[in-house]
Amino acid sequence: MMAWPEALGLMAGALTTTAFVPQVAKTWRTGSAEDFSLPMLAMFVAGVGLWLVYGVLIEAPSVWLANGITGPLALYLLWVKLRRG
Amino acid sequence: MMAWPEALGLMAGALTTTAFVPQVAKTWRTGSAEDFSLPMLAMFVAGVGLWLVYGVLIEAPSVWLANGITGPLALYLLWVKLRRG
Repeated sequence: MMAWPEALGLMAGALTTTAFVPQVAKTWRTGSAEDFSLPMLAMFVAGVGLWLVYGVLIEAPSVWLANGITGPLALYLLWVKLRRG
Repeated sequence: MMAWPEALGLMAGALTTTAFVPQVAKTWRTGSAEDFSLPMLAMFVAGVGLWLVYGVLIEAPSVWLANGITGPLALYLLWVKLRRG
């Protein structure tokens, strides 16, 4: 049976990861990322990248899975921000 | 000496946490969170809360420190979204 903290990590990751799906859908629909701060998105994407490596290193699937999915979604928001301002 | 993965986790956490500072500053200035998706913010805040508990359970300072700071910052964005739409 999976250690219970890891199960909690998977739930946490599921929430913070799936949270980006309605955001990407809204940004896709509106084409606007104006209210996002560019430094925030750039730092966030870089941080998620490091979290991915960290999760692999400490062999915590909840960490690398969550960040492996959040990364591309956050990257899309950064892309819209860079293109549309 | 701190295990190097944990140092990487601290850097990742520093990035994804400090990323919210320019975002909160921008939202404070503009008073607008229109481009944010409400479900995203709600799920994200809940997920960060669980990450905080997870970090404490697995005794990973990088995880609980990052999420202990990100939580209130993300909560502020959720508050503006709820108040201003």
